[in-house]
Amino acid sequence: MAKARRKQRLSKREYQARVQALRENLLQMQVGMKNVPFKVLLLLAGPEGAGRGNLLHALTAWLDPRGLETFTFLPPTDEEREHPHQWRFWRSLPSAGRIGLYAGSWYTEALREAARDKRARDQLHHEAERIREFEKLLADSGTLILKVWLQLSREAQGRRLQALSNDPETAWRVTDEDWHHHRIYDRLAKTARRIRKLTDCPGARWTVIDAEDERRRDLLVGELLLARFKQQQKKAARLNRRMGPPRVVRPLRPSGLRRLRALPLDQDLSEEGYESQREKWLGRLNRAVREALEAGRSIVFVFEGWDAAGKGGAIRRLTSALDPREYGVISVAKPNDEEKHAHYLWRFWRQIPRDGRVAIFDRSWYGRVLVERLEGFCREDEWMRAFGELNRFEQQLTDHGIIVLKYWLHVSHDEQLRRFREREATAHKRHKLNAEDWRNRRKRRAYEIAVGDMLALTDTENAPWNLVPADSKRFARIEVLRSASRKIEAALED
Amino acid sequence: MAKARRKQRLSKREYQARVQALRENLLQMQVGMKNVPFKVLLLLAGPEGAGRGNLLHALTAWLDPRGLETFTFLPPTDEEREHPHQWRFWRSLPSAGRIGLYAGSWYTEALREAARDKRARDQLHHEAERIREFEKLLADSGTLILKVWLQLSREAQGRRLQALSNDPETAWRVTDEDWHHHRIYDRLAKTARRIRKLTDCPGARWTVIDAEDERRRDLLVGELLLARFKQQQKKAARLNRRMGPPRVVRPLRPSGLRRLRALPLDQDLSEEGYESQREKWLGRLNRAVREALEAGRSIVFVFEGWDAAGKGGAIRRLTSALDPREYGVISVAKPNDEEKHAHYLWRFWRQIPRDGRVAIFDRSWYGRVLVERLEGFCREDEWMRAFGELNRFEQQLTDHGIIVLKYWLHVSHDEQLRRFREREATAHKRHKLNAEDWRNRRKRRAYEIAVGDMLALTDTENAPWNLVPADSKRFARIEVLRSASRKIEAALED
Repeated sequence: MAKARRKQRLSKREYQARVQALRENLLQMQVGMKNVPFKVLLLLAGPEGAGRGNLLHALTAWLDPRGLETFTFLPPTDEEREHPHQWRFWRSLPSAGRIGLYAGSWYTEALREAARDKRARDQLHHEAERIREFEKLLADSGTLILKVWLQLSREAQGRRLQALSNDPETAWRVTDEDWHHHRIYDRLAKTARRIRKLTDCPGARWTVIDAEDERRRDLLVGELLLARFKQQQKKAARLNRRMGPPRVVRPLRPSGLRRLRALPLDQDLSEEGYESQREKWLGRLNRAVREALEAGRSIVFVFEGWDAAGKGGAIRRLTSALDPREYGVISVAKPNDEEKHAHYLWRFWRQIPRDGRVAIFDRSWYGRVLVERLEGFCREDEWMRAFGELNRFEQQLTDHGIIVLKYWLHVSHDEQLRRFREREATAHKRHKLNAEDWRNRRKRRAYEIAVGDMLALTDTENAPWNLVPADSKRFARIEVLRSASRKIEAALED
Repeated sequence: MAKARRKQRLSKREYQARVQALRENLLQMQVGMKNVPFKVLLLLAGPEGAGRGNLLHALTAWLDPRGLETFTFLPPTDEEREHPHQWRFWRSLPSAGRIGLYAGSWYTEALREAARDKRARDQLHHEAERIREFEKLLADSGTLILKVWLQLSREAQGRRLQALSNDPETAWRVTDEDWHHHRIYDRLAKTARRIRKLTDCPGARWTVIDAEDERRRDLLVGELLLARFKQQQKKAARLNRRMGPPRVVRPLRPSGLRRLRALPLDQDLSEEGYESQREKWLGRLNRAVREALEAGRSIVFVFEGWDAAGKGGAIRRLTSALDPREYGVISVAKPNDEEKHAHYLWRFWRQIPRDGRVAIFDRSWYGRVLVERLEGFCREDEWMRAFGELNRFEQQLTDHGIIVLKYWLHVSHDEQLRRFREREATAHKRHKLNAEDWRNRRKRRAYEIAVGDMLALTDTENAPWNLVPADSKRFARIEVLRSASRKIEAALED
């Protein structure tokens, strides 16, 4: 953690000279930013009176406002409350090449709660862990995160609040809560030190800046932004080496591949067996889902599987048990421009349903460790890191009470071939098959390894994988209905 | 308005045969849809017991759920209430090539209100007008809108509600309100007839379908969807002729061009005059904005003008009067993939601020009648229609209480040349100039005509254009601050 530097006050003349140079450099920086593959988050925090507002004003005057977004976080709206905690922060994120100035941030609420409530103080390390994970995820993807703590002594704070109160133009800005916080200054400072210590991590360091001299404060923050941007730019240029598909694919955790291969695919179900079972499980699933939604829980289904494994058919049987007004099916295809420039999880966060809804993903965030791994759409360190990121992503969903059900539909290589040929031969099925499907088929061995790693590394207690033998469509469809009913019932009992 | 057809009940056998054919055709339709440039909205309305839920179920079972979105509208969330009325409907719209099934729609609330409240019934024609405009806008852009009214007699409704109440599985679905609506059946039916009549327009016709025979009801709606889709597909193919830039650009309304040319550009302001005026107007603007936001009003600034007219500089001076936490600057560039497939206004609706915020658009929806008109990015009928659409769009903003301030920054051809040359000669300004700017400059005459038409045809009372002589940057910047302050003050007095 960089220490606060205390020096003699900055003269107006020196300030003006340095600001002049800084402004030109910042504008140049922003011109260059349009082509960088990362975004910048500058978080400002500190006690009342430390001048977050004025600092923000200086920064926005120096920078081109067209490349900037400024955030404060008011108490969550009802839409925000009906989503996992981090959803509101995800939806605020600026896109690559832009700067987000956070006058409030994920720290605001944590600090406010901790000031108010002893229990929240005891839970601070939990909150800190959540923040660490979020910031690590962003930093790992190349985001430049600058966290500035504006330091102000108790005495200086008292003088500032008094001065603001005395001026009729600004008196409205000083609230009773501000004075209360002034009285408990020491306790708040201690809590703030603690959260800074807990969240001072590589890629998301705190810089403590003395806020007493306003000119120096603004200048130091501006210069920090500039310096750290240049560092990050160099780092990004180094990383920006060409990606390509791996030549050899080796399993990271062979147990997953063994589990996949051990799945018995010869299970079948007669036409009559199917008809009778279907009615039973559709009814049961309908009741389980209705109960979950009424309790304000959401359900997220994830369908992954081989091409022609029957994901579409399974989804149709599943939706026939649901009220069309309560679910949405999200088909995941290649990302669009906007999505390409964002974190790979961003487009999925956008689709996470509000409380009391069902979302069915036809392919999902697992593309990161399947197609993106094998086709070289991301670097090795990126897909390697993704396993943990995906687990933590789903953990956030289930922490919010969302029931996450993941299905891998497994067909044998032979059965897949039979279905491909059938599609070729049937006029109204031909659109379902293209050259890419044949290409992927030829890479079955590599894909099996990637699927195995996925099964082994993302099979968590809160969001386990369901492997469905799908050589028999009837069997697979019933299996999905049955396991979904049971899992939802079990989740409601917990 | 197509009349309800009453026939003898459909036999189960006939039903099954027709459903079989229908399903195949619907799935084929959806395969073809992926490549059509339009979306489909199917609205279902009708009295309780008419079976909207069951019909929806049938439709979603027949169609591929991956190309579908289903909507109901619950009472608006707080985020929705803090936006213009139509915002929630805009954000629901599916993208081109997809089907939106509306179990609830913009009619739901209008009908519910009218059932409850005599005043709402008297205002029904206002509500109907709003709906007509919205549907016309969508239909004009090629959206297929199907509106189905499920007809059910009072007696049949009574029987249905009773049957539902008697079954313990469905009794929860029948509310006291349903029975109340049954008692006032005749009044509701009259209101419904009235709103149907008021909103039965080309491109958004009502079809009344007898809902007593459930099989026939579902089948007729499915067949209607299929038939109308095919019609629309043919129509779209006819329209899909190549677009190109117009060879000659003639003014639609020469008064705008005259107004543009009459603007005196020789106004200037000395350095000292600028300094003193700036402080005065920044302070006044700051107070006016603060007052507006505290009153829950939003402010939308629109900046249009020639290349190098000084939009960026004017925006920076303007933002220096604002609290960075309360405004956002939206730079409008070429649309991304997602935006390209949506209605041209959709991406602006997404950016309309919540109550109590400032949004500054650096270029805007007026691109439709400027660059898109002149470069042939849309058809002539499209940009011709846009003038009225833009007016109605802004009307919706101002109806919600948003203050809309539009600026055209005007520089002479000579001054523009001087600035282009200066940009070329100055290292840190060179990025601001590209080949396209020179190309646009050569088309000055055509652009003047388009600007003139824009000024003449979108200069409305609620959102008038402010023409700013901008050959002097100092003069222009003060002019923006001055007029913004005064207009906001005036808006607050109204």
